[in-house]
Amino acid sequence: MSTKLKGIAASNGIAIAQAYTLTEPDLSFEKKNVSNSVQEISRLNVALQQSKNELTTIKNKVEETMGSEEAEVFEAHITMLSDPELIGAIENEINSDKVNAEEALTNQTNHFISVFESMDDNDYMKQRAADVADIQKRVMGHLLGVDLPNAALIESTSIVIARDLTPSDTAQLNRKYVKGFITDVGGRTSHSAIMSRTLEIPAVVGSETATSTIKTGDMVIIDGINGEAIVNPSQTEIENYKQKQIDFEKQRSLWKKLKSEPSISADGKHFTIGANIGTPDDVRAVQDNGGEAVGLMRSEFLYMDSSDLPTEEEQFQAYKEVVTNMNGKQVVIRTMDIGGDKHLDYLPLPEEMNPFLGYRAIRISLDKQDIFRTQLRALIRASEFGKLAIMFPMIATVNEFKQAKGIFEEEKSKLIEQGVPVSTNIEVGMMMEIPAAALIADKLAKYVDFFSIGTNDLIQYTFAADRGNERVSYLYQPYNPSLLKLIKNTIDASHKEGKWTGMCGEMAGDQTAVPILIGLGLDEFSMSATSMLQTRALMHDLSSEECKKLASSALEAESNEEVIHLVNDFQKQNK
Amino acid sequence: MSTKLKGIAASNGIAIAQAYTLTEPDLSFEKKNVSNSVQEISRLNVALQQSKNELTTIKNKVEETMGSEEAEVFEAHITMLSDPELIGAIENEINSDKVNAEEALTNQTNHFISVFESMDDNDYMKQRAADVADIQKRVMGHLLGVDLPNAALIESTSIVIARDLTPSDTAQLNRKYVKGFITDVGGRTSHSAIMSRTLEIPAVVGSETATSTIKTGDMVIIDGINGEAIVNPSQTEIENYKQKQIDFEKQRSLWKKLKSEPSISADGKHFTIGANIGTPDDVRAVQDNGGEAVGLMRSEFLYMDSSDLPTEEEQFQAYKEVVTNMNGKQVVIRTMDIGGDKHLDYLPLPEEMNPFLGYRAIRISLDKQDIFRTQLRALIRASEFGKLAIMFPMIATVNEFKQAKGIFEEEKSKLIEQGVPVSTNIEVGMMMEIPAAALIADKLAKYVDFFSIGTNDLIQYTFAADRGNERVSYLYQPYNPSLLKLIKNTIDASHKEGKWTGMCGEMAGDQTAVPILIGLGLDEFSMSATSMLQTRALMHDLSSEECKKLASSALEAESNEEVIHLVNDFQKQNK
Repeated sequence: MSTKLKGIAASNGIAIAQAYTLTEPDLSFEKKNVSNSVQEISRLNVALQQSKNELTTIKNKVEETMGSEEAEVFEAHITMLSDPELIGAIENEINSDKVNAEEALTNQTNHFISVFESMDDNDYMKQRAADVADIQKRVMGHLLGVDLPNAALIESTSIVIARDLTPSDTAQLNRKYVKGFITDVGGRTSHSAIMSRTLEIPAVVGSETATSTIKTGDMVIIDGINGEAIVNPSQTEIENYKQKQIDFEKQRSLWKKLKSEPSISADGKHFTIGANIGTPDDVRAVQDNGGEAVGLMRSEFLYMDSSDLPTEEEQFQAYKEVVTNMNGKQVVIRTMDIGGDKHLDYLPLPEEMNPFLGYRAIRISLDKQDIFRTQLRALIRASEFGKLAIMFPMIATVNEFKQAKGIFEEEKSKLIEQGVPVSTNIEVGMMMEIPAAALIADKLAKYVDFFSIGTNDLIQYTFAADRGNERVSYLYQPYNPSLLKLIKNTIDASHKEGKWTGMCGEMAGDQTAVPILIGLGLDEFSMSATSMLQTRALMHDLSSEECKKLASSALEAESNEEVIHLVNDFQKQNK
Repeated sequence: MSTKLKGIAASNGIAIAQAYTLTEPDLSFEKKNVSNSVQEISRLNVALQQSKNELTTIKNKVEETMGSEEAEVFEAHITMLSDPELIGAIENEINSDKVNAEEALTNQTNHFISVFESMDDNDYMKQRAADVADIQKRVMGHLLGVDLPNAALIESTSIVIARDLTPSDTAQLNRKYVKGFITDVGGRTSHSAIMSRTLEIPAVVGSETATSTIKTGDMVIIDGINGEAIVNPSQTEIENYKQKQIDFEKQRSLWKKLKSEPSISADGKHFTIGANIGTPDDVRAVQDNGGEAVGLMRSEFLYMDSSDLPTEEEQFQAYKEVVTNMNGKQVVIRTMDIGGDKHLDYLPLPEEMNPFLGYRAIRISLDKQDIFRTQLRALIRASEFGKLAIMFPMIATVNEFKQAKGIFEEEKSKLIEQGVPVSTNIEVGMMMEIPAAALIADKLAKYVDFFSIGTNDLIQYTFAADRGNERVSYLYQPYNPSLLKLIKNTIDASHKEGKWTGMCGEMAGDQTAVPILIGLGLDEFSMSATSMLQTRALMHDLSSEECKKLASSALEAESNEEVIHLVNDFQKQNK
């Protein structure tokens, strides 16, 4: 009989395929005394060779799909497996202590790990510790004859089952074979969920029990529309879902037809639908999906994918590429949002008890102004090549904005003085993601050109609940009237000063939220590129006047659940 | 020449005395080869005996000033110093490896520490690791002839100099001798600052350089009114400050005369001034300082000072004692606020990346209902002995309050059914400390009997800035109009439903904030007991109508600084 799992719908669509579980296998072993050391060392050498072969395969696959930079780590692992100091130490222990290879491998690699780890404040060495831990697992797997699952090794159509997917896991997923995935943890805003929408792979997250219920080889249906999975479905279930899959694809192809249509409500009100992007390469998906703007370009990739601070020229080239490729459509670039959960090896920040409430984003930029000024110069120079706007993350007070804007003006004047061509029309705005700022949006609106509401952080601070913490995930309440009030306050304040408000958090592409946001008067909706056309389709069906009434009722509601009911009723009436 | 240090004024008053620096001494040593092991072991034994003698002295002092429970840890250290396994291991190493006692002590105690520490998820064992580390330092001090400073060893009038004062440091401070203190770190809401007000000791915190500037024996003046310290003052400076000390004591004695006066503004509006307390013993200071209520009794002491969950009976006795001793004046008791930075050894909570945004307070109570119900029963039973009110911490949504209130009603009904005498008039309210709740205060006001604004947390969430993190301390902005709006929204909503609003955060006793809070219509001001009379004196000088105008201007301001200017101007006009 089939088993049904319930989770959170992370990415639209239906997928049907065999499971590939990406979980940690059992690598426990018994310490044994081995009299024949020569034979044991030869066992070790076989496992080392198998590990190198496997790493070479993974490295080649990653190189092919992701590029050579991403593959470098595997090359480093291969080199380590030939390191005479490490391998010699393992062989010595087998020889002198007469123990089995598993025991010697564990002891010697643990020794290296603890040496590396003890080198305080040295992220490079900590990374080396992680590398040795990785090698330990791989060689142990071969010694024990246990397969270590790896996304890069998937060679037939599969549904991936995992506790969670890290950025490096998703980097290795081969889109040709991976048709969907389901995880135990995570919510709609977790890394894995965002990635599934970018890759347009149906996905369910936060199922709690996927890895304990599903085994490699099980047949699995992923229903990314309703947030469900069916394990070992009956033939009838498979047929049903195949039909649903066809219906969904039909739907999707209808959406695709809206690529060049305007984003307009049923009663003729115009909006802008844009995309959130992470790198210049993402522009193509924006154009393919009929994006009218880039509502948020995160600039972190420049800092994260680097071994040192990116130069002004490197940044300039990246910004210029995006602005140019967007052909005169607006591109809003957010200045550095480092800190919180994002760290740079070359810019060590203090350990903090609550990093989300700590030294991050604009707080660092205003403190380390050299880094900030370099970024601003690159941005200002790129403005000449299209329609570029700049926004500052994590602004909490009027003074912070004025200070950041002042630095921008200084750098702009300097460039103009130097004869550098610069657009005369660079909009400068801010992320609205801290309650303090949303509460005095009327004051801030006098100084900004626009607001862009970052709902992920705004929700987490408004409810005092870490969005990565499962124990308080019930407080991720995007429809709660308390949050809606902050959104309304922001939009109203901007309009009063003749400015505009966008939204670049997950909520902007959430089909339950869109009618309310239209009703509240949001001007720009920025989301995963793959959600844009579906949102445009929804907009075409909605009357902005009816949405206004819906928003008014929502503001008067008492709870998140009550608002969801209101929207459901509204959508039924609209059908 | 004298040196002036600037810090944050933590507790009123002037103190003049010699410095006692409570800092970690240099305990570095060189490993040496020692041929005469017998002599080296005898060196070790002398140091062990000196350590035991010293611990006995400390233990006796702590027992005398704090009670036998607090002294137990020192008894445990004395016992450890006679543990044959530990001492034997050190002696063995001296014997077999021919090393000096310092080296053997370090190696062997480190070994024990790492064994204890490796016992994961066992807080008892982790505490033992801390004990061994403590012993290591003490014995090392005696081997090297270096004094280990200890608050309990202070035997003449002193100013304590420390990087920070932990709860266990302050527990050992002898009020007879310690006349003031200054720390490098901390703000007005840090533990050390709150403690200084409770003990009525002048204090300056966050001076950054106190420990690097001041040496034991230096003469020091602490000016807790202006947040300054003078190191090695001139005779003239000493004379000046002695005069200031006399003036301040005169002022304080004037305040003391207001003990039985009402808390009333110059134009006759009545308010309630109450105290925040931590244990039943604190009631005496409330009565001594003319408190009209206990606006916040934290119930954590019952959980923190215990090796297991406190029983219903233990809790009942504590609550009954407070309620009885307050003689019919209202006592607001807050249910368990564990989590965040407060942990219980016997109730292990998951490690969290951002504990202040995590699983804490009411979130735990609603999840672990057994603990919550036990506490509620104890509270309801105590209600019979005076005027008891209950409030829930960290309420973010209407549903959370309704659920908590529902559980309260269930337990109350059960007790009534069992024939237990219960007050018919227990007010049930909530802390207002999360932006989401303050934004929908109108909805919550229908269900609560009162609000109590917890400004410390409310500020930290509103500005998304950890109040313990020095790098973002500039965002502790109690006068920022964004925060004032949340306070106004809360007070207005409660009054509309005929309910009342109190404040039990640091801000309620802040002399700059009080005029604004009067203007916003706050009903109850709860603060450190020692700040109550000064606040009452201030109230007597203020017109509530003028304060209303001040509050209106403050709400229209743009920044924290602008509001401070407004209050300063207001106070000048009022003089």
